[in-house]
Amino acid sequence: MRATLMYGAGDVRVEEIADPVLQQPTDAIVRVVRTCVCGSDLHPYHNVPAAEDGTQMGHEFLGVVEDLGPEVTGLKKGDLAVASFAFQDNTCDFCREGVQASCRHGGFFNTAQAEFVRVPQAAGTLVKLPVGEDSALLPSLLTLADVYGTGYHAAKRADVNPRTTVTVIGDGAVGLLAVLSARQLGAERIILMGRHKARTDLGREFGATDVVAERGEEGIARVRELTGGDGTHTVLEAVGYQEAYEQALGVVRAGGVISRVGVPQYDEGPIGWGMFGRNLTLTGGPAPVRAYIDQLLPDVLDGRVEPGKVFDRTVSLDEVPDGYRAMDRREALKVLVRP
Amino acid sequence: MRATLMYGAGDVRVEEIADPVLQQPTDAIVRVVRTCVCGSDLHPYHNVPAAEDGTQMGHEFLGVVEDLGPEVTGLKKGDLAVASFAFQDNTCDFCREGVQASCRHGGFFNTAQAEFVRVPQAAGTLVKLPVGEDSALLPSLLTLADVYGTGYHAAKRADVNPRTTVTVIGDGAVGLLAVLSARQLGAERIILMGRHKARTDLGREFGATDVVAERGEEGIARVRELTGGDGTHTVLEAVGYQEAYEQALGVVRAGGVISRVGVPQYDEGPIGWGMFGRNLTLTGGPAPVRAYIDQLLPDVLDGRVEPGKVFDRTVSLDEVPDGYRAMDRREALKVLVRP
Repeated sequence: MRATLMYGAGDVRVEEIADPVLQQPTDAIVRVVRTCVCGSDLHPYHNVPAAEDGTQMGHEFLGVVEDLGPEVTGLKKGDLAVASFAFQDNTCDFCREGVQASCRHGGFFNTAQAEFVRVPQAAGTLVKLPVGEDSALLPSLLTLADVYGTGYHAAKRADVNPRTTVTVIGDGAVGLLAVLSARQLGAERIILMGRHKARTDLGREFGATDVVAERGEEGIARVRELTGGDGTHTVLEAVGYQEAYEQALGVVRAGGVISRVGVPQYDEGPIGWGMFGRNLTLTGGPAPVRAYIDQLLPDVLDGRVEPGKVFDRTVSLDEVPDGYRAMDRREALKVLVRP
Repeated sequence: MRATLMYGAGDVRVEEIADPVLQQPTDAIVRVVRTCVCGSDLHPYHNVPAAEDGTQMGHEFLGVVEDLGPEVTGLKKGDLAVASFAFQDNTCDFCREGVQASCRHGGFFNTAQAEFVRVPQAAGTLVKLPVGEDSALLPSLLTLADVYGTGYHAAKRADVNPRTTVTVIGDGAVGLLAVLSARQLGAERIILMGRHKARTDLGREFGATDVVAERGEEGIARVRELTGGDGTHTVLEAVGYQEAYEQALGVVRAGGVISRVGVPQYDEGPIGWGMFGRNLTLTGGPAPVRAYIDQLLPDVLDGRVEPGKVFDRTVSLDEVPDGYRAMDRREALKVLVRP
């Protein structure tokens, strides 16, 4: 089959490799119908060392079940299903506690930008979709694999509700879907920090009430100005750079929550009196998107929300390298792939 | 009046200074019946620079209302009352949100180790006690001013409940009362990390089910061994040194909460993938003890809990310098002062 491999920073190739096969009785093989490029794929795209052997890429996909191990329940060949970006058995104690990304039999996908994917723990990972391969809903359904559930995780972890004001840092797909999620959870005041007008316009459509284009100290001052000097109860940080965390510290209200879903590109950060003295909470992590799919799916199927609007470009599998380039240059917000 | 002043590290003196007087219509003057030395007083005792003028000390007290400003409601002269270590109006939006330590009209006491204290925002700060000056309950009631409410804050912020396992780091008064609080909130497994047997014995009396005397990597390994390799759902950190925070990171279960109430003696710490990847939450801060007094008072009055057991030495006001010394040398756990 054809699959996407990364050979080093900026070096993405689509090549012929062996088809995946069932390895465990809990595996499934899925023919990919839609996959995409993630903002987090850009981190290795920027800094992974060059290597002789490429590494397969991609963790977001939906597709048709082609083959099933004997222990996979609840699915049959021919089903269209969406996977969570991390696989899990969805039955262990961590999964029951809502920490699917730490499942005792789990792990992260990195083979989705391809024609076929082997899905470990298929029963706990794949969710059957009640639509056909030609459905116009596929882009929105694909966001359930990661970016929508990740934005939702940010909002849930921060306990966003009708009484909380919200700042979202970052106008990438996750940030915009954190806006949508905060709105769904009842937030009435949502300040989006981002400076790409096309994106922040979509953010407004998703529910942002204010947009702050400034960054750093200037951005902090602007958010404080919009909130009577106090900042917001919750800050959903969807970037991952230390500057974004520091911005979050600057705009969060005393007693408030910083909820991170951008993978931190730093190891240490300020957590001394400036955080402690104001009773701030820092939370977040890899989203247990499997836990959220059941809740988020009905509104997607009904068309009440359209998270798939974050896709502003579609490419074929062979064009995936162009997709990386376009996202890296910010010519595209998020690139959908039709293998 | 006589009052405690610190002139530099290790230099505590009791001297005659002017009596405090009402300054604002919301003030009260309280004659101190009991005060004490706090573990957090030892931080300046270790490292405050020498100065020509001393600084008054102390933030925990109960006493008799001697004078009241015209705007103070709910109190009268002669009332015995306990104060929270931070004063607050208890009506502003931060107070209503449970962040009394960030009250719009609040601040921290630092004049309690004395004969009299001026209490700003007296109506929001003093809680009348239904006992006399000679009550045997005074030591336990005094813990409501800080250490009990602070231990309780650690447990509340971590959402300790019957389904959560708990590690408490630190066998000082706050750590031991965090154990008591966790037990009151229903925790059935409470591991106390501390190495002073007299203290950890009191911790067992308060509800600790296991004691781990080891520290650092060895202590982490021991807690993991006690928890099937996984650590505990919550970690209540009642020390404040970076080693304690790192120990907390080592013993917390994926998806768990580190709740700090030890004032951090560091500015930066590890908050990268090691924290994010496991969906850990870091929370805590100066306790809104005023918010907890109403809940905690009945069990103290009924004798169902006896948090005052943390006091293992009593001194007069003139002997306060000895009290600091004894706590610093760990000869005393917590020193009660009868002015």
